[in-house]
Amino acid sequence: MKNTILVVGSVALDSVRTIHGSTTRALGGSAVHFSLSASQFTPVRVVGVVGEDFPPKCRRLLERRNICLEGLQVMPGKTFHWKGRYDRDFKNALTIATHLNVFQHFKPRLNRAHKECGVLFLANIDPDLQRDVLDQMAKPRLVACDTMNYWISLKKKSLVRLLSRVNLLFVNEEEARQLTREYNLIKAARILAAMGPRAIVVKRGDSGAMLFYDGKVLSIPARPVEKVVDPTGAGDTFAGGFMGYLAAAPDWRNFDVLRRAMSFGTVMSSFNVEDFSVKRVGGLSRSEIRGRYEQYVSTLAIK
Amino acid sequence: MKNTILVVGSVALDSVRTIHGSTTRALGGSAVHFSLSASQFTPVRVVGVVGEDFPPKCRRLLERRNICLEGLQVMPGKTFHWKGRYDRDFKNALTIATHLNVFQHFKPRLNRAHKECGVLFLANIDPDLQRDVLDQMAKPRLVACDTMNYWISLKKKSLVRLLSRVNLLFVNEEEARQLTREYNLIKAARILAAMGPRAIVVKRGDSGAMLFYDGKVLSIPARPVEKVVDPTGAGDTFAGGFMGYLAAAPDWRNFDVLRRAMSFGTVMSSFNVEDFSVKRVGGLSRSEIRGRYEQYVSTLAIK
Repeated sequence: MKNTILVVGSVALDSVRTIHGSTTRALGGSAVHFSLSASQFTPVRVVGVVGEDFPPKCRRLLERRNICLEGLQVMPGKTFHWKGRYDRDFKNALTIATHLNVFQHFKPRLNRAHKECGVLFLANIDPDLQRDVLDQMAKPRLVACDTMNYWISLKKKSLVRLLSRVNLLFVNEEEARQLTREYNLIKAARILAAMGPRAIVVKRGDSGAMLFYDGKVLSIPARPVEKVVDPTGAGDTFAGGFMGYLAAAPDWRNFDVLRRAMSFGTVMSSFNVEDFSVKRVGGLSRSEIRGRYEQYVSTLAIK
Repeated sequence: MKNTILVVGSVALDSVRTIHGSTTRALGGSAVHFSLSASQFTPVRVVGVVGEDFPPKCRRLLERRNICLEGLQVMPGKTFHWKGRYDRDFKNALTIATHLNVFQHFKPRLNRAHKECGVLFLANIDPDLQRDVLDQMAKPRLVACDTMNYWISLKKKSLVRLLSRVNLLFVNEEEARQLTREYNLIKAARILAAMGPRAIVVKRGDSGAMLFYDGKVLSIPARPVEKVVDPTGAGDTFAGGFMGYLAAAPDWRNFDVLRRAMSFGTVMSSFNVEDFSVKRVGGLSRSEIRGRYEQYVSTLAIK
């Protein structure tokens, strides 16, 4: 169980429109994008909730990837549904509708197998629920969390309490600035590190990602993509690749291991944006991932 | 003369305000930022114009760096003066005033030494003047140019004519998109390459830079800077480090050489933004540059 990741987050159906087309009620949600990515590296168990309308083919797609869905509650009602669109620059999602549905009443309940997972990823949900999940865990060797602007505005205190207990924080640029009131990302990361997490990952979309660890800074570029179709879930796919690699590594507290995790996160998210929903990442082979990773890393090895 | 760069561009006095303070009539201009950066790698000759008010200490600062100012005409009147400010995010310069002064009547005249330079950098000036300079050259082995939104809007035809004769184009993201009407940078670069330049460098500010060469793509991150004081001239400083390294290399048509040029450009521009005007780059030692370069490159070498 040492290398197994427990992820707690949303399982959703997304309707998305971009310049390259649209999709209706396609599989999405933070726990889904994360686990499809992470399961390429290590075993993953999901705790989440869906409604009675959740399509059996979505369930099968996840199970085929060896993602354990024992913790996926089915509740009377409908599955969380997000409807949004992106402009040509793909920078900001415009939300057209958010129907929380059964997700509104989500109370994560962990069974024994969940509690004994070595690694915990708290995807972007209410920080009080995140802390509640953490309280139920036996003794995970690595705890990471994500969050969003909404919780920083509404539940900053809860979030800060949580941060004192996590090893690793994922945020995007704007969230890092919002949480610290500091524009410069190096300074912002220092403030975040003082709140608890030993490692801070700042996701920057097509500007790449930054890692702050023990006073060290790594900035890496995004892997250029010629046709961005749908960026929904790119952040969670990044976190999945990162955490999946880290969970499978003998010791995560090593800058070289963390640098590789950053690169796997980058590569996995570059696949995610190439098609709608989980179409690209759901069908990936190990050799495709390895190939793109080798290419990404070798381009950056400036001799 | 094979490794000597001739740069033609503006020599200016800048008044800049940022969150970290302000400076008045400080040394600036594209040819200045470029040459101070490039001269760390290779001999540089400047062709430009200043007014009678151009401070002798600015001239001495450049000459101390072995930058040849034989081609710096002094004309009756005042030196080009730009006044602007930046907001906290340093993304866009807000121009408060542009006084072209003597620069308005700038007609680049090359002497024999200028004409025989092996490398030509046409900084951001009227594309008709850029072409006029190119016509005066003997036979440079490497020609690069920069441009800006203003010329793309006003003189696109002239610019496109010029592009068919240059080896290397520097643009920023927005210019690449404006010039090609294509948002995706890989596709935009392909369109630009079809216009003539074999290598395209897209400058992306704190998102790094991209190189497109013979169908290959390199994206590298900016070197993180903890205190950005003044980004004025960062693009020209990047081009200076890039071109300086390239001019000194035996053959620029080599992806490994170009990747190192990208890294030196990145490192030089990271120094530029750390202080106002040319304060940081004007006083740099080789070992400071080498140290930051080694650190930058080794961080990216993901093993």
